[in-house]
Amino acid sequence: MDKINNDRQDIIEDKSDLYIIKIGGNVIDNSENLHNFLKDFTALKGYKILVHGGGKVATQLSETLGIEAKMVDGRRITDIETLRIVTMVYGGLINKNIVAQLQQFGTNAIGLTGADGNFIRTKKRPVTTIDYGFVGDMDERSIDAANIKRLMDAGFTPAFCAITHNGEGQLLNTNADTIASALAVALSKLYNTTLIYCFEKQGVLKDINDESSLIEEIDPKRYEELKEQQIIHSGMLPKLDNAFTAIACGVKAVIIGHAEKLGHLTENKTFGTRLINNA
Amino acid sequence: MDKINNDRQDIIEDKSDLYIIKIGGNVIDNSENLHNFLKDFTALKGYKILVHGGGKVATQLSETLGIEAKMVDGRRITDIETLRIVTMVYGGLINKNIVAQLQQFGTNAIGLTGADGNFIRTKKRPVTTIDYGFVGDMDERSIDAANIKRLMDAGFTPAFCAITHNGEGQLLNTNADTIASALAVALSKLYNTTLIYCFEKQGVLKDINDESSLIEEIDPKRYEELKEQQIIHSGMLPKLDNAFTAIACGVKAVIIGHAEKLGHLTENKTFGTRLINNA
Repeated sequence: MDKINNDRQDIIEDKSDLYIIKIGGNVIDNSENLHNFLKDFTALKGYKILVHGGGKVATQLSETLGIEAKMVDGRRITDIETLRIVTMVYGGLINKNIVAQLQQFGTNAIGLTGADGNFIRTKKRPVTTIDYGFVGDMDERSIDAANIKRLMDAGFTPAFCAITHNGEGQLLNTNADTIASALAVALSKLYNTTLIYCFEKQGVLKDINDESSLIEEIDPKRYEELKEQQIIHSGMLPKLDNAFTAIACGVKAVIIGHAEKLGHLTENKTFGTRLINNA
Repeated sequence: MDKINNDRQDIIEDKSDLYIIKIGGNVIDNSENLHNFLKDFTALKGYKILVHGGGKVATQLSETLGIEAKMVDGRRITDIETLRIVTMVYGGLINKNIVAQLQQFGTNAIGLTGADGNFIRTKKRPVTTIDYGFVGDMDERSIDAANIKRLMDAGFTPAFCAITHNGEGQLLNTNADTIASALAVALSKLYNTTLIYCFEKQGVLKDINDESSLIEEIDPKRYEELKEQQIIHSGMLPKLDNAFTAIACGVKAVIIGHAEKLGHLTENKTFGTRLINNA
């Protein structure tokens, strides 16, 4: 290999570390847990992106306004009224309160939907037997990684809520887990990317009722076995499917663990279940 | 003057143009007017910042939720419930729909509160005879102009709603006119800044009921005369006071005019009332 190629390889391998960290509703619904999580997030050095889901507030507001929450197969049907509510709650109330707290702790956060900066452009899910309403589906071109990098290079830490747009003026409700993994895949071309799902359990458990039954590491082969043995429960399946797809597409590792344990990363300790690719 | 000083002066005078454009509730409440305005905003070349107020949606949502809007001297009292509503409506619903439309037209907008990027830090208004609640007051250090410049240099167009923060995790409701003028003053150190207030009238009118009675230009001396003659009505006074303060602090000019006429700027035509400093 000649000198030029060597240099080139150095440049390609000399990528900065990036953590993409997703928190779910259970962290958001408890103000003390959220406070501690955002402190730990701030302590983590280097490039990082926060992605957050909804929580109970959207459902509560819908109920107060007399708008019935419609669910099919565990997914919320987003009619126009529900879209208004999630835009208010996810994009306004939750996102901006998270940003204000991050700023308090010293993270120079900017709260975002996928419409901001045209960072995440999706397509409205086609109507088949079910009309999901204003729900955005991602594809491999949805994320504008270069534009997100420009924002981070300027010194800002993105905090995404689970709303995207179609590029034609329409906001769309989009699953936060999917946003996190799509961001991780797209940004793994520019960064050594670790994707972290923080939730209210210690990680992937052998016995869902036993927090001490944590599975510390899973590779694709073990994942197939765990599925066959029906050890992994239904709610975890989409999260793990997303995770292994992300790893297959260049993400360094995926961690699924308890939000309270995020601080372990700063102390170079492991936590939760680590998904890796041994292939 | 020697060569170095000449160079220095060139650098100081060679500032880029910046337009800071504020739209009020009457533009936001009419979707066709808003659509046209955002198209005209996009057509305007160079650096620009959008600032938007509220509109009827916040009041309507309050009423639906049974939260009474409390007003003292024409100002909304922001209790904790009202703060939640304006954070949802201004920071979420209105701001993100504006951003989605701007992106549709080709403006690379990012929707912001003052908490995002720590761009606008205010102090909760002290309680005197009136407790205004969660309202943020600005001072000369509120705006982080260098940080806003970094965002614009990275290729993004800021779109601010009328919410700020205190830097200690608390969001605060803040008058949009005041935000616009404070941004203009702070950024006039870095840009040749023109501040534009777009609303539903042609500008400052001699007779409030006659749209053809537009006053095309006002300097501070004429402003004093117009106030003495009580030609300028009460609702216009804070806007003009803000404007002349901004001009005294380095803003090049302030234009007050109809939102439908913003396109005139792109065609190098004047519109509305132009406030200048002849001193």
